[in-house]
Amino acid sequence: MEFNRRRQLATDYYQLSMSNVYVNEGKDEDIAVFDLFVRSNPFNGGYLVCAGLEQVVDYLTNLKFDEKDIDILKNNHPELTEKFLDYLRNFRFTGEIYGIPEGSIVFPHEPLIRIKAPLIQAQIIETPLLSIVNHQTLIATKAARIVQAAEGDAVLEFGLRRAHGSEAGLYGARAAVIGGCVGTSNVESEDLIKLPAKGTMSHSYVLSYASEYDAFWTYTKYNQDNLIFLVDTYNTLESGVPNAIRVFSKLRDEGRLPKTYGIRLDSGDLAYLSKEAKTMLVENGFDDAVISASSDLDEYLVRDLKLQGAQINLWGVGTKLITAYDQPALGAVYKLAQIDSKGEITNKLKISNDPGKITNPGYKRVVRLYDKDSNKALADLIMLDDEKIDEKKPLTIFHPVHTWKKRVLTNFYVKEMMVPVIIDGKPVYKSPSISEMQQHLKNEFETMWPATTRFTNPHEYHVDLSDKLWNMKLGILNQ
Amino acid sequence: MEFNRRRQLATDYYQLSMSNVYVNEGKDEDIAVFDLFVRSNPFNGGYLVCAGLEQVVDYLTNLKFDEKDIDILKNNHPELTEKFLDYLRNFRFTGEIYGIPEGSIVFPHEPLIRIKAPLIQAQIIETPLLSIVNHQTLIATKAARIVQAAEGDAVLEFGLRRAHGSEAGLYGARAAVIGGCVGTSNVESEDLIKLPAKGTMSHSYVLSYASEYDAFWTYTKYNQDNLIFLVDTYNTLESGVPNAIRVFSKLRDEGRLPKTYGIRLDSGDLAYLSKEAKTMLVENGFDDAVISASSDLDEYLVRDLKLQGAQINLWGVGTKLITAYDQPALGAVYKLAQIDSKGEITNKLKISNDPGKITNPGYKRVVRLYDKDSNKALADLIMLDDEKIDEKKPLTIFHPVHTWKKRVLTNFYVKEMMVPVIIDGKPVYKSPSISEMQQHLKNEFETMWPATTRFTNPHEYHVDLSDKLWNMKLGILNQ
Repeated sequence: MEFNRRRQLATDYYQLSMSNVYVNEGKDEDIAVFDLFVRSNPFNGGYLVCAGLEQVVDYLTNLKFDEKDIDILKNNHPELTEKFLDYLRNFRFTGEIYGIPEGSIVFPHEPLIRIKAPLIQAQIIETPLLSIVNHQTLIATKAARIVQAAEGDAVLEFGLRRAHGSEAGLYGARAAVIGGCVGTSNVESEDLIKLPAKGTMSHSYVLSYASEYDAFWTYTKYNQDNLIFLVDTYNTLESGVPNAIRVFSKLRDEGRLPKTYGIRLDSGDLAYLSKEAKTMLVENGFDDAVISASSDLDEYLVRDLKLQGAQINLWGVGTKLITAYDQPALGAVYKLAQIDSKGEITNKLKISNDPGKITNPGYKRVVRLYDKDSNKALADLIMLDDEKIDEKKPLTIFHPVHTWKKRVLTNFYVKEMMVPVIIDGKPVYKSPSISEMQQHLKNEFETMWPATTRFTNPHEYHVDLSDKLWNMKLGILNQ
Repeated sequence: MEFNRRRQLATDYYQLSMSNVYVNEGKDEDIAVFDLFVRSNPFNGGYLVCAGLEQVVDYLTNLKFDEKDIDILKNNHPELTEKFLDYLRNFRFTGEIYGIPEGSIVFPHEPLIRIKAPLIQAQIIETPLLSIVNHQTLIATKAARIVQAAEGDAVLEFGLRRAHGSEAGLYGARAAVIGGCVGTSNVESEDLIKLPAKGTMSHSYVLSYASEYDAFWTYTKYNQDNLIFLVDTYNTLESGVPNAIRVFSKLRDEGRLPKTYGIRLDSGDLAYLSKEAKTMLVENGFDDAVISASSDLDEYLVRDLKLQGAQINLWGVGTKLITAYDQPALGAVYKLAQIDSKGEITNKLKISNDPGKITNPGYKRVVRLYDKDSNKALADLIMLDDEKIDEKKPLTIFHPVHTWKKRVLTNFYVKEMMVPVIIDGKPVYKSPSISEMQQHLKNEFETMWPATTRFTNPHEYHVDLSDKLWNMKLGILNQ
């Protein structure tokens, strides 16, 4: 069952309108370089977690148009020429894509994806690339913050019902797991992220039985492990927790108390209720019971509840994660950096009155500089693709807007941030598994100073330009 | 091309975990009634615009599970019994759905969709129904507010690149048009909403030419109508608008100035720039040029710009609409109201310490009461399905929480809000076209007092309970 989607047409019409001109003007052979990047960190935070690259490759390597698509376009847009429609009939992506691996910590202004392709192709794919990367990077970043607040406790993604449709729920769950969630409630994600979906029961299940005890006990007949009872349908401390304890006691007497058992709190004051519930569970010898909570959580509430001594060790996060509630759009952009028209190469930038909005020209790459002793990241450097850095010499880097702010780096080493993903239209990158991406992010956090990753007023991580790139930019601005 | 989605598995795992119990306990024959409703108006507003019903029907009438689905579930969940997996193999939705037509103005607490189906079916479909209705109702409501602010100007939906993936962009565009947008940039939506997608050119198009004038002029060679030039790539008033005017003048000289032509402003102070641009256009005799704007717009900025005399007559709204930026989740819920277990009917409600969160029991319907003279809506009434209202007698209605607040209605007439959509698993409702839904919403607005629809501190529209329903609720609460 599919819902009659024509995913290949998921683009802004101006991409086709412009491409129609390009084909007819012989500009479809021009080779363009575009950078996909973010202009500022979301959530007033100090970093981003990039995600979505695997879906970008999937999209680009499958993109083609059938006769039904052509018919739809013809009927709606008499201005589209036969020559252009023929171009679409034979479309396949033949360009080059470099990207920063998913689960990497990244920063504003550095290219997350570099596209080099015939101008027309680069144009048609712009909107889908942005919607994929904007969405998944946003959710992965939000998830990383919530996981950070949970300080080692497990965090589950529970938001499908509040997602912007089921596809947003699916890829949102994927991004949440890259960001550090140990799982999701979303069954459709099982095949994609290779993890069993999680969950046990809702209020309606408990209500459908004559008593809460019956509801819990019956559940144990068909579930040998993961017995997490929802305890707030009637009254958490007077009914829910006591009934859960009665069932756990009976299972213990029968010698079949499972490894994972416990309760879920879904309303009320989670700090108070979890502490009271913990006491009741411990008094009955259930010290290792899971106490999970799931009520409008985000990184700030998780942090606050922990500060107040909440006895919660599993956090189910829904709405605020799956919609990135406090900032539901990332604002990644896709900007032209170079055009090669019949061998004549022109580097391009977008001028703006706001210096931070002026884009960087040229065919570029990004490196990260690390301190040799601490292995902490010192700064990122955007440079032209053919530049080299001599690790043996001191390196002077400077702020990309306030260029008088300089730092001299010694004792550093360099890591390339981008990897080749598609070359000549063919995928050349084996995407890591989701759990490898999640591990990669954990490793990335080890290389970041806490000043960069704190929630409030984080220190701005340096993303600087090489001398050569800066001079190219200045040259174009002074033209 | 599809992306290997298994849409049928897009549900929370606990739905399957509970259903596994129900099948094995013989509870799968129990018939449940659920209500899908919203608890509060989004955006601090006074109303909602419901949307998504057509996709709900599409989902329910296509829902089935194949052997690959069963394999995935088996591998991930050893607790799922063969009996339950067999149930899924033969699954089809056999229940009844009533719903309020899309484009209707609706209010918190009234059922937008009423589900009556075998408990297990009602459970499996819960999550997808919520994600569809939550998403589309949210975006339709946001769109309605922006269209309201535009006071008759055309509003276009431009947000695909910032949507939570392309499916969110597609159905978001659909909901935006129901909410009153005259179109969208999203090409994939053309087949769904029967409107040509809109758009002309981006900054990269202008940058790809040696001059701005060349870029505009070349565009006219392949487009006879809808010549909207993006004028802020270099300098709006010194370069963009003058170049556009040169092109329009030449076209006028050649006798081929089209019906729809004009400019698009995408940065800077839109009030100032639009007024200056208007003056320049009028001085050159282009009084009827379109002046469109598209920079981080929402209902508040549109209203402010209009108050400041902005000369804009076409509004392109992206991020803030497609993500419902200031409140990106609606929070519709799906609550059990009745269970019929082998003929024994029990009405159910969910108790909460918060009176506004106590749900309404029973098999219910919603009516709207209108004043006979003004045709304005007076109140909505939630009542038991078999109740009748005598329009000839005065009707006393009361506040559902503060029951001493009473009103006596005379001179009113009654409209049923819900229509039958699926009966015995078969679709019985012919969904109106999107443009009919849009028109329906316009008609709905005519029946609302401005106090209900204003942005700031709107008057709370009354959604009351019938005596009979109130007594049923009180009876259960007093048990």
